Amino acid sequence: MMDFLEEPIPGVGTYDDFNTIDWVREKSRDRDRHREITNKSKESTWALIHSVSDAFSGWLLMLLIGLLSGSLAALIDISAHWMTDLKEGVCTGGIWFNHEHCCWNSKNVTFEDRDKCPEWNSWSQLIISTDEGAFAYIVNYFMYVLWALLFAFLAVSLVKVFAPYACGSGIPEIKTILSGFIIRGYLGKWTLMIKTITLVLAVSSGLSLGKEGPLVHVACCCGNILCHCFNKYRKNEAKRREVLSAAAAAGVSVAFGAPIGGVLFSLEEVSYYFPLKTLWRSFFAALVAAFTLRSINPFGNSRLVLFYVEFHTPWHLFELVPFILLGIFGGLWGALFIRTNIAWCRKRKTTQLGKYPVVEVLVVTAITAVLAFPNEYTRMSTSELISELFNDCGLLDSSKLCDYENRFNTSKAGELPDRPAGVGVYNAMWQLALTLILKIVITIFTFGMKIPSGLFIPSMAVGAITGRLLGVGMEQLAYYHHDWAIFNSWCSQGADCITPGLYAMVGAAACLGGVTRMTVSLVVIMFELTGGLEYIVPLMAAAMTSKWVADALGREGIYDAHIRLNGYPFLEAKEEFAHKTLAMDVMKPRRNDPLLTVLTQDSMTVEDVETIISETTYSGFPVVVSRESQRLVGFVLRRDLIISIENARKKQDGVVSTSIIYFTEHSPPMPPYTPPTLKLRNILDLSPFTVTDLTPMEIVVDIFRKLGLRQCLVTHNGRLLGIITKKDVLKHIAQMANQDPDSILFN
Amino acid sequence: MMDFLEEPIPGVGTYDDFNTIDWVREKSRDRDRHREITNKSKESTWALIHSVSDAFSGWLLMLLIGLLSGSLAALIDISAHWMTDLKEGVCTGGIWFNHEHCCWNSKNVTFEDRDKCPEWNSWSQLIISTDEGAFAYIVNYFMYVLWALLFAFLAVSLVKVFAPYACGSGIPEIKTILSGFIIRGYLGKWTLMIKTITLVLAVSSGLSLGKEGPLVHVACCCGNILCHCFNKYRKNEAKRREVLSAAAAAGVSVAFGAPIGGVLFSLEEVSYYFPLKTLWRSFFAALVAAFTLRSINPFGNSRLVLFYVEFHTPWHLFELVPFILLGIFGGLWGALFIRTNIAWCRKRKTTQLGKYPVVEVLVVTAITAVLAFPNEYTRMSTSELISELFNDCGLLDSSKLCDYENRFNTSKAGELPDRPAGVGVYNAMWQLALTLILKIVITIFTFGMKIPSGLFIPSMAVGAITGRLLGVGMEQLAYYHHDWAIFNSWCSQGADCITPGLYAMVGAAACLGGVTRMTVSLVVIMFELTGGLEYIVPLMAAAMTSKWVADALGREGIYDAHIRLNGYPFLEAKEEFAHKTLAMDVMKPRRNDPLLTVLTQDSMTVEDVETIISETTYSGFPVVVSRESQRLVGFVLRRDLIISIENARKKQDGVVSTSIIYFTEHSPPMPPYTPPTLKLRNILDLSPFTVTDLTPMEIVVDIFRKLGLRQCLVTHNGRLLGIITKKDVLKHIAQMANQDPDSILFN
Repeated sequence: MMDFLEEPIPGVGTYDDFNTIDWVREKSRDRDRHREITNKSKESTWALIHSVSDAFSGWLLMLLIGLLSGSLAALIDISAHWMTDLKEGVCTGGIWFNHEHCCWNSKNVTFEDRDKCPEWNSWSQLIISTDEGAFAYIVNYFMYVLWALLFAFLAVSLVKVFAPYACGSGIPEIKTILSGFIIRGYLGKWTLMIKTITLVLAVSSGLSLGKEGPLVHVACCCGNILCHCFNKYRKNEAKRREVLSAAAAAGVSVAFGAPIGGVLFSLEEVSYYFPLKTLWRSFFAALVAAFTLRSINPFGNSRLVLFYVEFHTPWHLFELVPFILLGIFGGLWGALFIRTNIAWCRKRKTTQLGKYPVVEVLVVTAITAVLAFPNEYTRMSTSELISELFNDCGLLDSSKLCDYENRFNTSKAGELPDRPAGVGVYNAMWQLALTLILKIVITIFTFGMKIPSGLFIPSMAVGAITGRLLGVGMEQLAYYHHDWAIFNSWCSQGADCITPGLYAMVGAAACLGGVTRMTVSLVVIMFELTGGLEYIVPLMAAAMTSKWVADALGREGIYDAHIRLNGYPFLEAKEEFAHKTLAMDVMKPRRNDPLLTVLTQDSMTVEDVETIISETTYSGFPVVVSRESQRLVGFVLRRDLIISIENARKKQDGVVSTSIIYFTEHSPPMPPYTPPTLKLRNILDLSPFTVTDLTPMEIVVDIFRKLGLRQCLVTHNGRLLGIITKKDVLKHIAQMANQDPDSILFN
Repeated sequence: MMDFLEEPIPGVGTYDDFNTIDWVREKSRDRDRHREITNKSKESTWALIHSVSDAFSGWLLMLLIGLLSGSLAALIDISAHWMTDLKEGVCTGGIWFNHEHCCWNSKNVTFEDRDKCPEWNSWSQLIISTDEGAFAYIVNYFMYVLWALLFAFLAVSLVKVFAPYACGSGIPEIKTILSGFIIRGYLGKWTLMIKTITLVLAVSSGLSLGKEGPLVHVACCCGNILCHCFNKYRKNEAKRREVLSAAAAAGVSVAFGAPIGGVLFSLEEVSYYFPLKTLWRSFFAALVAAFTLRSINPFGNSRLVLFYVEFHTPWHLFELVPFILLGIFGGLWGALFIRTNIAWCRKRKTTQLGKYPVVEVLVVTAITAVLAFPNEYTRMSTSELISELFNDCGLLDSSKLCDYENRFNTSKAGELPDRPAGVGVYNAMWQLALTLILKIVITIFTFGMKIPSGLFIPSMAVGAITGRLLGVGMEQLAYYHHDWAIFNSWCSQGADCITPGLYAMVGAAACLGGVTRMTVSLVVIMFELTGGLEYIVPLMAAAMTSKWVADALGREGIYDAHIRLNGYPFLEAKEEFAHKTLAMDVMKPRRNDPLLTVLTQDSMTVEDVETIISETTYSGFPVVVSRESQRLVGFVLRRDLIISIENARKKQDGVVSTSIIYFTEHSPPMPPYTPPTLKLRNILDLSPFTVTDLTPMEIVVDIFRKLGLRQCLVTHNGRLLGIITKKDVLKHIAQMANQDPDSILFN
């Protein structure tokens, strides 16, 4: 008989794909490991160094994640910028320059004409040597659509062939993974590579999608891959999830140039287990990532994001009314978007549509490109559009949106008063209204296709357009009617009262809030974009209204809705379980089912156990003193049991089918000539969680959430009665919410 | 026989003073309440309105807390400013003006002489009609000390007579209260009133203390008092703690003008249970508080704090070396301060010293005032000192610290190059060095006296002085040796390379970090003071180094050290429990003790139970099926048991000492002429938490922390074996850390 206590059998303690980890066990294992290193560190200098390096490996890992995700973000920014411009033309000064850089290097341009330089050639110039006339327009139009289709085709094909996990925004899956689920390969190197490439292609194709959500996925892939370099994180699923939380923060940090917002996003939106140590490390990773991105300087303006803004005019209390209106719009749009998008995605899942992802992507791309080209606001990349909408018209702005009358008359030094809108502004208003309709409709069909696609940028665009429209409207109202009671107390003629750019920003926050239901992190991200406490109140008013309105129309944010659509076993930490059911209503076996399958601690043979294993599919079995008393001893996992028995049969002399399995501490002395016994106490979990059958489900749900349990045993007056698994809990929650409990897929 | 299920007995479910609340039960009760309101809301319009107002009452409460704590903070700022100046003189233009305001209203001053105006009279001017000569100096000196002693005497007497809880910073106690402990009156209206008044007095007395920590206490008092206006929060200890967490955030928000930093401080440092809903509400409260303070505008500069700064020069990578040195200094100082301060406080507790708080305060005040007056940097209020140290010398600064040679030569527009230090700077250096020594020594004796005293400002002052000294040193080094290899790559002659104000800020962060061990919240607070991402990296480097150095010398921050000194039952959430003990090593009864005191479910009489109650002091008893089987049914609290029996004896006909108490669902039919039974199932907790005897203590500690338990029962193979209370856990942790387990005081 062998004792396995010292020598762990390979495979014991690991998890199968699509299973839920046991947080308590993982954390225990990490503490054991840590304890061992600490104890050894007193023995030799080498062990001491090992112990110190182990303590600092977390920080090193964060540094690497920050560097890698910052660099990747910069790479994606630069390539996407270049490829977006490629749809319109090429630079003869060097094919690798985008439009802006091409003209920077040119000497033949004035500041006014800074985007028209001889080195930059549109496709019509290259092909038919002219840029004027209807034919040239058609050539450019054709090339635009062609490139868009090419990019989209490449993106969807690469995803389909090499890494199916690279599609979508990835945030619903990352939320699920962080809550303790295992999806092998979802954060692997293939996904990283393909997602990075296809993200650039997808963004460049001009589809209504953003790179911000996928950047979080990319950063998490970096985190997961870098974990493999450190023993501490490679082998422990709980520790690895701490790293992934930090990586998510780094992802948002580079997406928006908002390190603090990134950490709060990770805390509020994606993370499940977020101890304070992780908070601090996330912050470090987010900062490193932001600074890496800034030193690479992809936008050439030493800013982290394209749409950094500075406003100069304070807002007035009365303006809270339009801001709250924007909040209501954001909430309505968020709720509408989630409903229609989920309905469409469900259709894709259940009908023939889902079988032709390439065709779907090509059709949507073609429609988007054909409709987008004629309108300059849809033709430009969405982040450029947002940047222009956020912009506070300065003296030198040549954009149509700033085409006010008397635009060069300044009242005081540098201050621009409210002015009547010129032809350009009215023109822009129409085009923006059309853009708004296109974006609203097409985004519903775009999000969820088999390409990397984020939702932040399209949502922000919808809000920013609405906000700008309202802002310009308010501005003109205030200009022409400054004698109205609502204006005359604070807005005299010739003063700069209303900043349409701020309205755009508030609108963007409102729509983003309506879709994602983010709150603090949203406001902080926006705060970091403007850098002034001044504008937090409007943002907060809009975000709050938007969340309330959207929550009234449907409780779930887009990510939770997609989690439920895909049936991931995610136990929402935010929602309180409000029903008055008891543990006995949820546990298996149900009232009329056969009794719970249990093992006894000292009377079952290998064969008995093998029969139970082959006849059931449960992932674990309670061990009791005897079937009569039903007094609980411990819990053993199916996987560990199979591996141990297999191992014993192979290695341990004489273990046969009639060998008795002992889960007790000491096996009794055996009479001679009986087959050797198999001692399996080492794989027995001696501290299984138990609740009584009368425990309210709200407490059970709380325990599952807070401790990260996989299963919990139910007792009545000290007798084992049943078992509740995480899946049972999820099914019960779905049932109580009148949803289909069988939509919960995995273990 | 009566059934109490419908009619709760008054007092059941409340707590005694100095007891720990049961989070699970409190949260269950709130969910029940919520469920009831939701169900009723469908019945009538009135109930619907009630349900909506109930949902919004949390937000209304946050608004009120923000308004009240913002106003109180402004009041404290204004009064402290005025009274601090009163030590030096009075304004004849109006006694209620402080020095600055007095001279604002004066027409006879130039910008240069803005703090010398005829309306402001020093005491010597008032008493001997001159401000010159040695005698005038002595008169001013004398008046300064006299006022300081008067203020200090008033402060300590008010605290001693009216509200002993008003002393100290209050943060250790608030941490303990938020973790679920009850200290009645600690957050009451008397404490609020006395703390507000004495805080002003203590700050004005010129002692080395700050108002930031006590402001958190003041805000929490506001929160607690306002809770009484809302049923939802008045009656539920768990819900009330959510409000207190938000109030703490509002307190820090007004103390530093940093709403986001305040929320993170509450999350990182003081809160125990911090659900996401609280995060959002805390943010709201913190914002409202900050804006209230800003609209009252106590500093007259539309900033939230006295030491808001803007720097203009970027920092160079090489400067990380001095920043890290500052971090090391901060860590060393933090560790030293905590040790010496705790040693002194222990002496105060254990010797005669503690019996004469008034004398102690007067002696320390006298020493501080006598030593402080001759040195202008100790004479000014500490926050003004910090503000001056943070300041980046501009063209118009007349302070001695900006007395550089050639100070009016600017190289480029507005940019000030590094210059050789003038006499004033060298002079200031000496005075600052003396100030540093005084602050370091006197703060050790000041923190912990019987007056309101915060630690943030003195710590920041120590760090800021050190930082400024180092910064000026670096600046001069770079000026005179710009050809050195470490400088010549980035610091050419005549350039503005080094900002001594930034060094002061980094030093302040380092020392604050060393004392409090704050991390993210510290960096975010400092970030909000400067408003530029640019300077986060230096701050972070210093804060990180400081924490590591300080942690290496002693694990606890100052607040945790004071919690341990006072023996509060606080279960630290940050520290991992690293020992390999089991639940059976901790549970009561110990191996050789008498058996666990249990009640049986259907065989004990009222007299039996009363005997057990009077013979033991346990706060609860497990109920078992029978003494032989030891199978657990539930848990009943001593307080509930006493109240229920008393109530039954009073109201229920015929309940006598021989009545049998039933905890079962149905009592069996009784033969006639036996005394009526007492049914107590309604006070029985049917879902007590249990763990097995072999559960590692690390898991038990985790369960206690995460679920907020008060006690947990221990079973072995389904039999009840013992009990572990929160106090047992705390004692065990103290024991394993080689501390005196009997220092844990309360339940």
